[in-house]
Amino acid sequence: MSNVTSEIKKAKSAALVLATLDTETKNKALKAMADALDDNRKKILEANAKDVSNAEQMAKKGDLSDSLVKRLKVNDEKITGMIDGIKDVIKLDDPVGETMSSVKLDDDLILYQIKCPIGMLGVIFESRPDVVPQILSLCLKSGNAVAFKGGSEAKHSNKVLFDVLTEAAAEAAVPKEAFVLMESREDISEILKMDGDIDLLIPRGSYEFVKYIQNNTKIPVLGHSAGICHIYVDDEADVDLALAVTLDSKIQYPAVCNAVETLLVNWDIAEEFLPRMVKLFIENGVEVRSDKRAKRLIPKDPKVIDATDEDWDAEYNDLIISIAIVEDIEEAIDFINKHGSHHTDAIITGNKEKQAEFVRSVDSADVFINASTRFADGFRYGKGAEVGISTNKIHSRGPVGMEGLMIYKYVLVGNGQVVKDYVGKNAKKYIHKKLDKEFSL
Amino acid sequence: MSNVTSEIKKAKSAALVLATLDTETKNKALKAMADALDDNRKKILEANAKDVSNAEQMAKKGDLSDSLVKRLKVNDEKITGMIDGIKDVIKLDDPVGETMSSVKLDDDLILYQIKCPIGMLGVIFESRPDVVPQILSLCLKSGNAVAFKGGSEAKHSNKVLFDVLTEAAAEAAVPKEAFVLMESREDISEILKMDGDIDLLIPRGSYEFVKYIQNNTKIPVLGHSAGICHIYVDDEADVDLALAVTLDSKIQYPAVCNAVETLLVNWDIAEEFLPRMVKLFIENGVEVRSDKRAKRLIPKDPKVIDATDEDWDAEYNDLIISIAIVEDIEEAIDFINKHGSHHTDAIITGNKEKQAEFVRSVDSADVFINASTRFADGFRYGKGAEVGISTNKIHSRGPVGMEGLMIYKYVLVGNGQVVKDYVGKNAKKYIHKKLDKEFSL
Repeated sequence: MSNVTSEIKKAKSAALVLATLDTETKNKALKAMADALDDNRKKILEANAKDVSNAEQMAKKGDLSDSLVKRLKVNDEKITGMIDGIKDVIKLDDPVGETMSSVKLDDDLILYQIKCPIGMLGVIFESRPDVVPQILSLCLKSGNAVAFKGGSEAKHSNKVLFDVLTEAAAEAAVPKEAFVLMESREDISEILKMDGDIDLLIPRGSYEFVKYIQNNTKIPVLGHSAGICHIYVDDEADVDLALAVTLDSKIQYPAVCNAVETLLVNWDIAEEFLPRMVKLFIENGVEVRSDKRAKRLIPKDPKVIDATDEDWDAEYNDLIISIAIVEDIEEAIDFINKHGSHHTDAIITGNKEKQAEFVRSVDSADVFINASTRFADGFRYGKGAEVGISTNKIHSRGPVGMEGLMIYKYVLVGNGQVVKDYVGKNAKKYIHKKLDKEFSL
Repeated sequence: MSNVTSEIKKAKSAALVLATLDTETKNKALKAMADALDDNRKKILEANAKDVSNAEQMAKKGDLSDSLVKRLKVNDEKITGMIDGIKDVIKLDDPVGETMSSVKLDDDLILYQIKCPIGMLGVIFESRPDVVPQILSLCLKSGNAVAFKGGSEAKHSNKVLFDVLTEAAAEAAVPKEAFVLMESREDISEILKMDGDIDLLIPRGSYEFVKYIQNNTKIPVLGHSAGICHIYVDDEADVDLALAVTLDSKIQYPAVCNAVETLLVNWDIAEEFLPRMVKLFIENGVEVRSDKRAKRLIPKDPKVIDATDEDWDAEYNDLIISIAIVEDIEEAIDFINKHGSHHTDAIITGNKEKQAEFVRSVDSADVFINASTRFADGFRYGKGAEVGISTNKIHSRGPVGMEGLMIYKYVLVGNGQVVKDYVGKNAKKYIHKKLDKEFSL
């Protein structure tokens, strides 16, 4: 058994202990973790400086992207952000043991459905070291064990953060073995094979990275690969509102998955809306890729080029937008369901029936009405802390908070009931009355 | 593109229509399906008679088990059962569009989480033809498209049931293409590869069968492989209660996954409990496989043999039970978490603290106190109809009803809000107030 395999098996056992910790113990440990970050600022910054200096050298040679180096950097403000993040998790309700439903099956025979941790999680992430405190605090509060594998470019930062945090937690009676930091590249292929031990994998990184994980493991993966988001501007849209929302959806942070990539415009509003929209795009440095019909309505400009078929399935993550004209809302919905990535799609219209149709028919995790696609985010949704965004269609969808780390167990409390009394002639009948009763013994 | 691949792609498109049907239309279609079964009893019985006669000939040659032939048989009473099952589904609340949560992010910016169908399901099942009306009615009510692949031994029965039901539904304005029946064996390997199109697979059949499906697809699988259930009889158990519950858990229907396979007995009650328990087992034809310590307390009998290491990880599905002595509840819990299949495990004790410890620490879908393991079942839980039992730890766990066919989407309703107003200096603050508001436009 490799080192990592045996550490993860130990963590899985420790997960059973973690699942039974009371809220007070967990919050004390979280407080200790926040304090430890504050006490170890210097150590963290020193370790991060090593990573950043190595990464900058690699970036100079072209082996690393500048944006990756940027994401890698930790400063005092970012450490304060990590501390605040942990404090937010302290404030979240403890989900473990929460009663989800209760049903009276018969006299003195009550069935409870109660929340419990999923168990053993694996988190594989690229350069951002702030994933460590974020996920570690969510896992601790939700009673899940977790194994981390970060990018090698962040290895010093991850190691010092992991050590500082888990040592602080251990002093507050949290089993240290529940948390594992993997450091070698080979460990990834190792953990992808551990479908008997790891209950859920959470990859955080680029499209290609997440896709690679999804394609190479039997473990359920919580995540999203592509983020091809649409805005449909209906003929009953408020034009100024449509301009502002579309511009924000594209330029507020174009590198991320919830930025809009394709704009669909109703034929009947295109003449009024499109020239103004494209002018705004050009002023803000956005390249426009237009279909033939839209092109007729757009002033000629070097920033406006013809769209090809590939553009309708492209995630630019950049200051580029594709534009197509559609006849009506039905064509827009079909287009989105066909070309989208079921992430976030918005309609701009004042017509409530069309809003409802869009909500019913668009098969995406986040369906927005008259608001920027950029709102699709755990922090903005009020989840306190985000595990990730999921385009899965089972378990969790959209921005995922701590609730995505929970499952339930059924607890049946009886006093000797046997099934044979409920079958055959003279069978006792089940009552099946929904109760509003918290689990208690 | 193969025939099945193109039919499933069509079904996936039809799923988007199915997702938008109103409750009245769906209930009308369900009523028509129930009536059609009643009107076509003769046709169904004739088709089934062909399958049964073929199967009986195969069973004579030893190519099919007798229990499979038994499960295959449909009679008038079973058709009535199918009709009643569909009527139960009519009574279930329509889950589509249900508001799960609502949060005020800011003035005129409300985030709703609403239930929606998962989309395209694949159901692969062995001989029981009653799976067709059961799953078809649940899928229709929950707005999911579904492709079926039944065992070849039931092909005539499945075909006539599928045709009668989907034709009736189509007359009630339900898109017929949403439902697919696959008939050739090669279709299975075809659909296992369709992870871009099928959102969830539900295999129903033997342990080996489910395991095979789980090991050969990237599609999420809702199901359970092994059912290794335990009962722990604590030293503070009521002995008569322990005897009755354990006997029921073993003999009431030993061939199924929720029958008990291993009995753990606290050392301090073993002398009083075990001789009586084993006597009952022997009287009821149960073979007992005992560990060394238990053996000393059990009267010698040809039905009592020594357990081997393999027995602690065995699912007998038969009149066989393994028995081990444990020192205390902690040893019992460790044993269950190590050897169990996280399906259903019970404790027999009057001590509430030990009950609570067992509930907290046993990592199983169903954790029972003083009741038979045989209660772990969708019908007994009051779910109306059962999709299956899941030992997965994401999405659905334990007996799964219609709720297991649902996911949610986030709907954000705004009036032109843009993210840039909520970042940087003078950023607007999110309100994040939980509302108790149904989704409305």
